[in-house]
Amino acid sequence: MAAMGLLATPAAYAGPPALPPGNGRRILLLGAGIAGLVAAWELGQAGYDCLVLEARGRTGGRNWSLRAGDEILETDSVQRVRWDTGEHLYFNPGPARIPHHHEGILSYCRMLGVKLEVMCNDNRGAWMQDDAAFGGQKQRSRTVIADARGYVAELAAKATDQAALGAPVTDEDRERLRAFLRAFGALDADLVYRGSSRAGYALPAGVGAETGRLAPPLDLRQLLSSNFWQGPMQFGELLFQAATMLEPVGGMGQIGGAFGRRLTDVIRKNAVVTALRRTESGAQVTWREAASGIEHVEEASLVLCTIPFPALRTIDADFAPETRAAIAALSYVPAAKVAFEAKRRFWELDDAIYGGISWTSRDSTQIWYPTAGINEKKGVYVGAYIWSEETGRAFAAKAPADRLAATLADTELLHPGASAALRRGVSVAWPKIPFTGGAWAEWEPAARADAYPRLLAGDGPYLFAGEHMSNINGWQEGAVRSAHYALAQIGERIKSGP
Amino acid sequence: MAAMGLLATPAAYAGPPALPPGNGRRILLLGAGIAGLVAAWELGQAGYDCLVLEARGRTGGRNWSLRAGDEILETDSVQRVRWDTGEHLYFNPGPARIPHHHEGILSYCRMLGVKLEVMCNDNRGAWMQDDAAFGGQKQRSRTVIADARGYVAELAAKATDQAALGAPVTDEDRERLRAFLRAFGALDADLVYRGSSRAGYALPAGVGAETGRLAPPLDLRQLLSSNFWQGPMQFGELLFQAATMLEPVGGMGQIGGAFGRRLTDVIRKNAVVTALRRTESGAQVTWREAASGIEHVEEASLVLCTIPFPALRTIDADFAPETRAAIAALSYVPAAKVAFEAKRRFWELDDAIYGGISWTSRDSTQIWYPTAGINEKKGVYVGAYIWSEETGRAFAAKAPADRLAATLADTELLHPGASAALRRGVSVAWPKIPFTGGAWAEWEPAARADAYPRLLAGDGPYLFAGEHMSNINGWQEGAVRSAHYALAQIGERIKSGP
Repeated sequence: MAAMGLLATPAAYAGPPALPPGNGRRILLLGAGIAGLVAAWELGQAGYDCLVLEARGRTGGRNWSLRAGDEILETDSVQRVRWDTGEHLYFNPGPARIPHHHEGILSYCRMLGVKLEVMCNDNRGAWMQDDAAFGGQKQRSRTVIADARGYVAELAAKATDQAALGAPVTDEDRERLRAFLRAFGALDADLVYRGSSRAGYALPAGVGAETGRLAPPLDLRQLLSSNFWQGPMQFGELLFQAATMLEPVGGMGQIGGAFGRRLTDVIRKNAVVTALRRTESGAQVTWREAASGIEHVEEASLVLCTIPFPALRTIDADFAPETRAAIAALSYVPAAKVAFEAKRRFWELDDAIYGGISWTSRDSTQIWYPTAGINEKKGVYVGAYIWSEETGRAFAAKAPADRLAATLADTELLHPGASAALRRGVSVAWPKIPFTGGAWAEWEPAARADAYPRLLAGDGPYLFAGEHMSNINGWQEGAVRSAHYALAQIGERIKSGP
Repeated sequence: MAAMGLLATPAAYAGPPALPPGNGRRILLLGAGIAGLVAAWELGQAGYDCLVLEARGRTGGRNWSLRAGDEILETDSVQRVRWDTGEHLYFNPGPARIPHHHEGILSYCRMLGVKLEVMCNDNRGAWMQDDAAFGGQKQRSRTVIADARGYVAELAAKATDQAALGAPVTDEDRERLRAFLRAFGALDADLVYRGSSRAGYALPAGVGAETGRLAPPLDLRQLLSSNFWQGPMQFGELLFQAATMLEPVGGMGQIGGAFGRRLTDVIRKNAVVTALRRTESGAQVTWREAASGIEHVEEASLVLCTIPFPALRTIDADFAPETRAAIAALSYVPAAKVAFEAKRRFWELDDAIYGGISWTSRDSTQIWYPTAGINEKKGVYVGAYIWSEETGRAFAAKAPADRLAATLADTELLHPGASAALRRGVSVAWPKIPFTGGAWAEWEPAARADAYPRLLAGDGPYLFAGEHMSNINGWQEGAVRSAHYALAQIGERIKSGP
């Protein structure tokens, strides 16, 4: 079956695990991000008495959409979003897309009535730019991709008339293989790549004599010198980046918001956890009201901790030494994003770019164009999405105003003159966001092999969940699946417990 | 510049041509499809006195969305759409997508305030099925595409250690080329393709021990036996099919409708043209009211005819013999579509397919899943989109009920059990649609070289426009560009005329 490809599709999504009846049993959950919200929802459905302690004044955690009037609090700065209001005028500093096979998070969207729309992720009309190739001149994504594909097919064709094929083949097989390569790469009849309409026209087709004129293909040596093939060019082929890509209408934060509205009774916002202590029957959680500083203590037999580790490390907890070491072993990606209100949707009007992502070798790395609000007057332009270790750290170290200036300078390279249309920029550098302290978890192989299973087993009354406790790091699906895993653990403990 | 790729992007859209002031000069336009509507709009803006004669009771022509209560009239049948009402419950029997670089039609959407959304065209989660390969078993698009890509890269890598490279290369160049091929095809370190997460997992990643298990790649010989590489596999690479793909919110017919509302005063609906005659000062057009049969005669110095040729051939016109021969020389694609109301969005719920297209080697050819209304209860499922000559003709010859039965049988192959959720099917076979008579123009090379330029020059008072008069056949952009071309001709005639 596997050889026939019958198994090569994601297994059907199993849904949350069945739980033994809660009968009012108390469970404490730390953090109202996606993992905490999913767990609280399912536990509530099964009759458990949950209390979710959330340090922020909102639910969702990294699931977050910024709009006019919102504040961005970093450890050493405050920014306020001063954009116009409008359904399409939002910015997702955290997750901003949902792959179509992330059926866990998608099923919660369905349950919550969160409307979804198709998001363009891989736009062949967007730009790729690398200072190290083509004299730094930007290229259309379609040109890079089609020309590279053509060259690969041409090279492959050279191997078809040689012993390279390895096994004996008939003339008919060889001709079929060549026809396949011709189709694959848009090769000429002689198996040479000389350019293709897939790469776009130098002069597009129109009427009469305008039959469409191709440009010669990009120079292969320049292509090989570029960083395009080290990421951007294959981007749309990746399982987690390929179409269909989805987004909630009105911003990713719709999910955290919808969960929050359904769980009002069990979530305590502005509740900052300060200490965790074991007790005879479970654990004691100390927390303080963010505004007043008043302290409270809660007890429960189980505590599900979904707090990201950079924040968890700062809490006074009596974890076992190996747990503490495991929590310390996890690194987080220092991602950052910068967004502006655009007075004019120049990417649509001047470049025919509708959604998707442009790439640059400069620090800004990725530019995101909104799928929402096509052809509206204004839009939110994400001028930088950075995730590499060095650049991310350096960016977080900059003052917000300096981040904006750096982003606009890079934008000018891809969209000359565009920065005049961009204003009221804001940035989110995740390493400096309190109660999170990083964008997403990245397990080093050694820690994945050793620390991860240790944490997964739990530590006495403490269980751990969140994207960091999954093998789908950096995606909300990881948080959902991890919450389900923790629910199964809770069920097992209760079934086997006293 | 071209070698650097600087010209390899579509030239900026120039917009409609400037026209000399109309000063109330009368121009007759035949047909209120996209070409006629664009021409009427621009002429009106310039002060011309237009009259558009439209045979149907609605504007748009092939730009058409069907909803509850609408009728489909073919030459020998009438169907009524008996679906529920709902913004997302529509069917576009004609054009259903707008590529992001079709700036002509997109600029009219902007001008008209027609809202656009991203449409998923190439969905890597959709199915490909071919009776001639893999025992007829469907495969996920992502699996076919990733595995084929891997095999091509592996083959190309075999050519890198041989004289096949043609020019002398350094070791460093060769290693860079190999690294590129590894990235291109997701090859292992030894340049062999052994499967990739791009193809999807046999068991997806989750939590703990669920780290994701790959399936072995599809058998290359089976892939080569399939028709996948003769179209479906390269589909998303084509200039006119690649992302970003757009669609009007609420259906393609929004464009024809919005034009129609702005041009109410100049469009005469239900006006069937029956005869065209030259006069001393231009031409005389005879038309009859569709309901009453009452005849009218109009005169103008110029007549812009946008009627598709299968319909134009049936009109009593005094075209020159070469014009008549040229009109006779054009073939039209006999495309057809079949749509059902789905009681349950099984493609989303069971297969995690959100929009996009599945392919089958059976007659249904393509299945389209709606981008609109994701996660709603119901949806419109397009079970067949057929355009090949033989299948299209055979399909048009079937009675509507037989078309539905044939489509459901094919659907069962890709979505077993799904036909129970499908009801109230309707079909549109373009060869049998009055006043159009075909889906879109396809010029044979000889006719393109000879008849096309002849027609483009016009014939006395008669000028021709429409997608058929462009080099962008089958796309609304062709109609727009052709209308602009005709407007420039009108301007020239007026400037040089008496």
